Amino acid sequence: MSLQKNARTIRDSSQRQEHPLRDATAAALGESRILRAFLPIIENHNAAVKDHQHQQGAEDPLLVGPGDDCAVFAGSPTPTVLTTDTLVEGKDFLDPWPAGISSGGYEVGYKAATQNLADIAAMGAEPVTLVVSLSMPAHTTYGWVEDFARGITDSIVACGAHSCTVSGGDLGTSNDITVSITAMGRMHPDTPKPVLRSGAQAGDTVAFAGQVGWADAGLRLLLQSHNPYLADIMAKQTTGKHPRCDDKVVQRALTAQLRPTSPVPAGVLAARAGATAMLDVSDGLLKDAERIACASAVDISLSAEAIEALSKPLVPLAQAILHGQPRNEDADSYVSLAQECVLGGGEDHGLLACFPSGALLPEGFVALGSCLVPEGQQPRVLLGQRQAQARGWEHYQPL
Amino acid sequence: MSLQKNARTIRDSSQRQEHPLRDATAAALGESRILRAFLPIIENHNAAVKDHQHQQGAEDPLLVGPGDDCAVFAGSPTPTVLTTDTLVEGKDFLDPWPAGISSGGYEVGYKAATQNLADIAAMGAEPVTLVVSLSMPAHTTYGWVEDFARGITDSIVACGAHSCTVSGGDLGTSNDITVSITAMGRMHPDTPKPVLRSGAQAGDTVAFAGQVGWADAGLRLLLQSHNPYLADIMAKQTTGKHPRCDDKVVQRALTAQLRPTSPVPAGVLAARAGATAMLDVSDGLLKDAERIACASAVDISLSAEAIEALSKPLVPLAQAILHGQPRNEDADSYVSLAQECVLGGGEDHGLLACFPSGALLPEGFVALGSCLVPEGQQPRVLLGQRQAQARGWEHYQPL
Repeated sequence: MSLQKNARTIRDSSQRQEHPLRDATAAALGESRILRAFLPIIENHNAAVKDHQHQQGAEDPLLVGPGDDCAVFAGSPTPTVLTTDTLVEGKDFLDPWPAGISSGGYEVGYKAATQNLADIAAMGAEPVTLVVSLSMPAHTTYGWVEDFARGITDSIVACGAHSCTVSGGDLGTSNDITVSITAMGRMHPDTPKPVLRSGAQAGDTVAFAGQVGWADAGLRLLLQSHNPYLADIMAKQTTGKHPRCDDKVVQRALTAQLRPTSPVPAGVLAARAGATAMLDVSDGLLKDAERIACASAVDISLSAEAIEALSKPLVPLAQAILHGQPRNEDADSYVSLAQECVLGGGEDHGLLACFPSGALLPEGFVALGSCLVPEGQQPRVLLGQRQAQARGWEHYQPL
Repeated sequence: MSLQKNARTIRDSSQRQEHPLRDATAAALGESRILRAFLPIIENHNAAVKDHQHQQGAEDPLLVGPGDDCAVFAGSPTPTVLTTDTLVEGKDFLDPWPAGISSGGYEVGYKAATQNLADIAAMGAEPVTLVVSLSMPAHTTYGWVEDFARGITDSIVACGAHSCTVSGGDLGTSNDITVSITAMGRMHPDTPKPVLRSGAQAGDTVAFAGQVGWADAGLRLLLQSHNPYLADIMAKQTTGKHPRCDDKVVQRALTAQLRPTSPVPAGVLAARAGATAMLDVSDGLLKDAERIACASAVDISLSAEAIEALSKPLVPLAQAILHGQPRNEDADSYVSLAQECVLGGGEDHGLLACFPSGALLPEGFVALGSCLVPEGQQPRVLLGQRQAQARGWEHYQPL
């Protein structure tokens, strides 16, 4: 007799409905389909809460539920926004990476904070606080935790989130270090309406603040165990030897991956400039542009020149990356790899926003393209005249 | 040359101060001392934010920072509260437990939600929303995720948190299933002042709502691989055979551990009745009473009769537990094990609160004792006339 099978009878089994996909795994389904196991149940629940609130004569405070960068709640004088993000050792960061560089406590705290601050900024809101959950093995050191705390607070300062506190958290045990941060923000009194992904209209200018492609280039370097450029740069720090590659470019890429900084105040500036849609680019420029396109039912056309301008500074890095992969050297040109980093690379946490045609772009934003009336049923992202293939990060899919 | 050692030079190392404990591990230091690596840095940061806000002529919204059940933020018309809690597979739950029963998706979602709802209730606040971060291996099934979502929403309903939505989340990859939930709540307009741990005064009545000891008894059963009582109960469900032990008592204990329910509305009732201090009992009645005692600078005296009344229904369970541990049968009496569960066991998520002497206890609360002027420098918890030894859950300490 299997006690495990009987476990189900311990609880009330009357609510169980056998979904045909019940035994399908996340690996087989992919991220977006596995989410469908979660969302309908949550949405049903939220609808029931709304009914209950109406019956009590109260307003449902939930203005925007799952699906945008943040949830939005009615508040006085302005709405509150809420978001959460997690980093897992061995999945989202390595200590050390194959290149020999570590994501230590400082890097983990820094990146986890930035991810969340960027989501707040992407609503046009100001970060108010972070709460931090840290699960770690018993062999984790005091120094690691100290670095972790300092990484969080340094990220807050570097992102320009000057009114953001760290108000609480939870400490627990795990095999792999796991950090979940939740950020709460509030809309600025001048711009109380949150900027969703769904407000872009045909004719809008698409613009971007921050950097893109650098974190991906940094990741590619970190994943290489024998890159001569990287070794030179590391060696220089102890020997003074002049490296073959511009180490500032490499350091910028490593910093973008290990300690990304999001231009948080640009989010409020965008809201003030009338942004119609916004998100932070965390999964790749094309993939995230596609999210705005789908939510807003527009096509988005990115200018080939604008993408080239973003890619150009990455070309020396592409060279460094390909020198670490000798067998790929002929397969890929430096220019196309640089462009691949810009279009497909996430984790820089810049802000992609749409503005009414003719609006003055706020400080920090550069125009990348425009929104168009969609040609087909499925909104598309175009690069120049051609449809772009959205690549970007997806969980559970084989790499 | 170790590239790892050089990793530090990539970042600005000027801010690093070498703390003498830097290389000490969490295992060596224990939970409370490892927290000291985190808190001073966070508190410095929060003080700097406060200064910055004052310079800008703005108020710091952070009314209560780390250290209570929730952080508290200024809000209109009432303050907002925020808390976060994490469950990790293999550490906080097993699938299956040695007894053969599983914490599946339903149980994990249920328990993670309840933990957070209880922290909101312990401030005297009403839960507004949960955001959920789920990290899981690629082999996790659609059915698990579906159960997980249903566990969360069923917990919300069972805890009586009728206006609580699930507003967002994050899905990621990990080796061990890890769930972080953050709950946001708000104070009720009738009782806008949050109930902290620090407000108890000598003379106050100490009271409790919910149950205590049952989750610990359930845990002890789940950790036994060959318990004849449990096997009988499981067998009965397939064979109809009458078990030797009252299976309702065992089921109540298993449910308390796997799917605990916190009396959330009792939190608002307590605030309305003038509660001076409150927390949810998650780490053990004595340990959590000690937290109130320390924060409020009072001694807490628990009545031996009240503890006996809480322990009595657990005596048959203690018998079942000890029958699964034949070698311990003589070492421990049923009565003392039942009392150990009540005093040391956490995870039932009942509410321990202090009320002004003579106040009418709100529905659901029973008196457990009273607050006294502290006799020594270190506030104590007394059981009857004797000082009680606070045992309870602590991370990173060998079990």
